[in-house]
Amino acid sequence: MSFPVTINNIAYRKPPRPCVAVCIDGSDPAYLKRFLALGKLPNIARFIREGFAACAMGSVPSFTCPNNMSIITGAPVSVHGISGNFYLDTATWQPVVMTGPELLKAPTILSGFARNGEKVVSITAKDKLRRQLQKGLDMRCGHISFSAECVQDCTLQENGISDVLQYVGLPQPDRYSAELSLFVLQAGLKILQDKRPALMYLSLTDFIQHKFAPEDPEALHFYEALDGLFGRLCREDINLGLTADHGMSDMSNAAGSPEVIWLQDVLDAALGKGETVVICPITDAFVAHHGALGGLVRVWSKGNASAADIISVVEQLPGVDLALDKDRAVRMFELDREREADVVVLARHHVCIGTSRSRHDLAGLSGHRLRSHGSLNELYVPFILNRPLNDAYKAKSAVQVLRNRHIFEYLINGMD
Amino acid sequence: MSFPVTINNIAYRKPPRPCVAVCIDGSDPAYLKRFLALGKLPNIARFIREGFAACAMGSVPSFTCPNNMSIITGAPVSVHGISGNFYLDTATWQPVVMTGPELLKAPTILSGFARNGEKVVSITAKDKLRRQLQKGLDMRCGHISFSAECVQDCTLQENGISDVLQYVGLPQPDRYSAELSLFVLQAGLKILQDKRPALMYLSLTDFIQHKFAPEDPEALHFYEALDGLFGRLCREDINLGLTADHGMSDMSNAAGSPEVIWLQDVLDAALGKGETVVICPITDAFVAHHGALGGLVRVWSKGNASAADIISVVEQLPGVDLALDKDRAVRMFELDREREADVVVLARHHVCIGTSRSRHDLAGLSGHRLRSHGSLNELYVPFILNRPLNDAYKAKSAVQVLRNRHIFEYLINGMD
Repeated sequence: MSFPVTINNIAYRKPPRPCVAVCIDGSDPAYLKRFLALGKLPNIARFIREGFAACAMGSVPSFTCPNNMSIITGAPVSVHGISGNFYLDTATWQPVVMTGPELLKAPTILSGFARNGEKVVSITAKDKLRRQLQKGLDMRCGHISFSAECVQDCTLQENGISDVLQYVGLPQPDRYSAELSLFVLQAGLKILQDKRPALMYLSLTDFIQHKFAPEDPEALHFYEALDGLFGRLCREDINLGLTADHGMSDMSNAAGSPEVIWLQDVLDAALGKGETVVICPITDAFVAHHGALGGLVRVWSKGNASAADIISVVEQLPGVDLALDKDRAVRMFELDREREADVVVLARHHVCIGTSRSRHDLAGLSGHRLRSHGSLNELYVPFILNRPLNDAYKAKSAVQVLRNRHIFEYLINGMD
Repeated sequence: MSFPVTINNIAYRKPPRPCVAVCIDGSDPAYLKRFLALGKLPNIARFIREGFAACAMGSVPSFTCPNNMSIITGAPVSVHGISGNFYLDTATWQPVVMTGPELLKAPTILSGFARNGEKVVSITAKDKLRRQLQKGLDMRCGHISFSAECVQDCTLQENGISDVLQYVGLPQPDRYSAELSLFVLQAGLKILQDKRPALMYLSLTDFIQHKFAPEDPEALHFYEALDGLFGRLCREDINLGLTADHGMSDMSNAAGSPEVIWLQDVLDAALGKGETVVICPITDAFVAHHGALGGLVRVWSKGNASAADIISVVEQLPGVDLALDKDRAVRMFELDREREADVVVLARHHVCIGTSRSRHDLAGLSGHRLRSHGSLNELYVPFILNRPLNDAYKAKSAVQVLRNRHIFEYLINGMD
C-alpha cells in the first residue's frame, strides 16, 4: 500500500485533499455559456476565474455509460469495454444490457485507491451505473456506493451505508426530476463533511437537459441549484472537478417533431427484413425523455449482408454523417472490438436515429422538442477545476488533447 | 476608425499592446512534450507556467495554407475559401494553385486593423502565403509584409520594406533550412523593436518537422533556437501567442519506406483510366521534404463515376479512415463547397496518400523516413500565450472548443 498507484497506465499520487469529480450528465457547453453570461453561476464563475477551465473531448459514443466508465477508469472504451447501454450478443442475437460489473474490463480508479487503503465514495443518480462504479470495492471497508434512484434499498452490506434518506434529511427524489441529481450532490456533501474520503465520484442525470434548452427557465433553475451545491462542496477544502459525459442537441424539425431516421425500416426495405439488427445504445430504463433516440446506432448483419452492403445503403441517407465498418470505428474512436457492431452509424447534427417507427414510444416527450446526443456533435463538454493547475499539468495541457476521462488525473495529480 | 472592429463576425478591441502571433508550422505537440520534459525550452515553459496553454484543434485539411488563412482571418475554410494549396478547376480540369489573393474570400484580421488605422506586419517563411496574408493592405501606409524565402526581392512598394537582409543583419537563408524560420522571427523582433505595430503575424516553415522526429537532435536544436527568440520577442512588452497550422506524423513502414496509397492508380484500375482526378492539396513548390505526400487527398469525377462509385472503391483500402462525399465533407469540416471535390479521402494514422506512383519524386527524402500531415491525425496543435487570460476569456475557454484560428482573438481580446 503505497503511492503512486498505477491504474490503467496512469500513475496517481496520494492526493493532497479529498478529490471530488462531478459528472453533470448532458451538460452541453451551451448551458454554461448562457448562464455564465447571465451572471447566474457565481461559484462556477469563481472556479473558472481562480482555477482551471477548458472544453474537453468526451468518448464516442457520446452516451452516458461509455463516458462514465471512461471517467471512472481514466481509460478509453477500448480498455474498459462499456461501449453503450446495450450491445448485441451474436451468439444469441439478443441485446445485452451493459450495466453488469462483469462486463467492465478495466479496474476503476476508485478500486485502485481502495486497494491502496483509501476510502472512496460513488453516488450516481441512475442505478444503472452503480454496480460498475463500485466494482472491486469491498463494501465492508468503509467505502460507500449507491444511487439516488434506489436510495431506499441501500444496505450496509451492498452499499456501505443504509437509511440514507434519514441521514441526508431529504425525501426520496422522483426518478424523472431535477431533485434526483441534487440529491446526489447533497448526499455527497454530507458524506464529505462526515468522512472526508480520498476520492468521491458524483454522477448526475440529464433529465433536465433532455427536456429543457438553455433558454428555458427550468434549465436555469437547475443550474443555479447545482452552482449553489458546488459552492457548498468546495467549502470543504477539496479538489473539485466538474465535467460531463456528453453534450445535448435539439433534434426536432421546424414542426416540433423529432427528425428521425428509422434505420431498421430503411435496412429491412433495402436488404431484406431480418437481415440486419439495429441497436440504439442510448436505450435504458429512462427512455421517456428521449424515446431511445440518439445520434449513434450500431448495425449487426445476420450474415448475408456485408458491412459494405449496409454502408452503401446508409450512406445514401442525408441525415447520416458517418457509416463506419468495425475496423474503422474501433481504431478511430478507441472502441472495444469484441462488442462492436459490423457498422457504426453517426447522425449529422440535429438528426437522431432509431430502429423501427413502431418500436419507439415518443409519448414521453409530451409536447417537448426532442433533445438528445450520441454522435460527434455532442462530444465536447466543460472541464472545470476549483484550483489552478500545478506546473506539471499546465505543461501537460499544452501537449495533450484534454478528455473528460482525465478529470480524476487532474484532480489527484494536477492541483497542489 | 474606431474599436471594436468586427472582422468575420468577431469583434476585436484595441489591443493593450502589440499582439504577435507565431504559427510554428508543423509543430506537433510531441515536440514540445519531449523538449519541455527535457527542460530545454525555458521561455515556452515560462509562458505555460505564467500565461495560458492548451492543445487546440486546427482546421481540416491539416495543411499549411488552410490553417494559415484560418488563423489570419479567424474564420473556417467555409468562410475564407482556401482549402489547400490546390483545387481542381472543373471548367478546365487543371489544378489551380490557391495562393492568389483573389481566391481568399474573407478579409484578414490584419486588413481590418489596417483599415482602422493600425500598423500591421506579416512575415512568412514561404512566399506562397505572402500575397494572401497581405491582401487588403495598402503598403504605402506603413504596413510590412514579406517572406524570408524572397527577402532579396523586397521593395517598399510591394512589401513596405526593402534591403531587409541589411536591416536585419543576416544572410539570405536557404529555402530548405531551419534558418528560414529563424529569419522570420529575427526580422519580426527587429521590426517590433523599431515600429511596435499593433499586430504582427510570423509564420514559419515545417522543413525541420518534416525531416526530423522529436527524438532527433536537429529538432531539439531548432526548438531551442525558437525558444530563445520567443524569449527575446516577449521582452518587448507584447502579447505573444504560439500555435501551429498542423501536427506531423511518421508515415513510413518498418522498412523505412513511405506507407503510401497510390490512389490515382487504384481508381484508374477500378473505374477506368482518366475517369477520376486525384489532387494532393499538400503539393507546393517545397515538395522535396515530403514528396507531395500527405494524409488527405481530393477526388473529382470526370462525369461517369458517381461519388458513391468512388467511395465504394476507396472504402476497401485499409489505409483509409474516411471517404466522404462533398456534402458530408463540407458540413463536417466547414469546407468551401465551391472548391470541394466530389470525394474527400482521409488516411489512417501513419499512412499517406499520393496520386500515381510515377508522379511523386521521393528522392528528396534522401534516406529520411517520410513525415507528413493532412488528416485528422495531425489536427491538434499547441496554443500558448505569454500572459494569463482575462476573466472573459477564461469563461470563453470553458464553453468553446479552442481552435488555432482563435489565436488573434485571444491575443487581442483575451489578455489584459
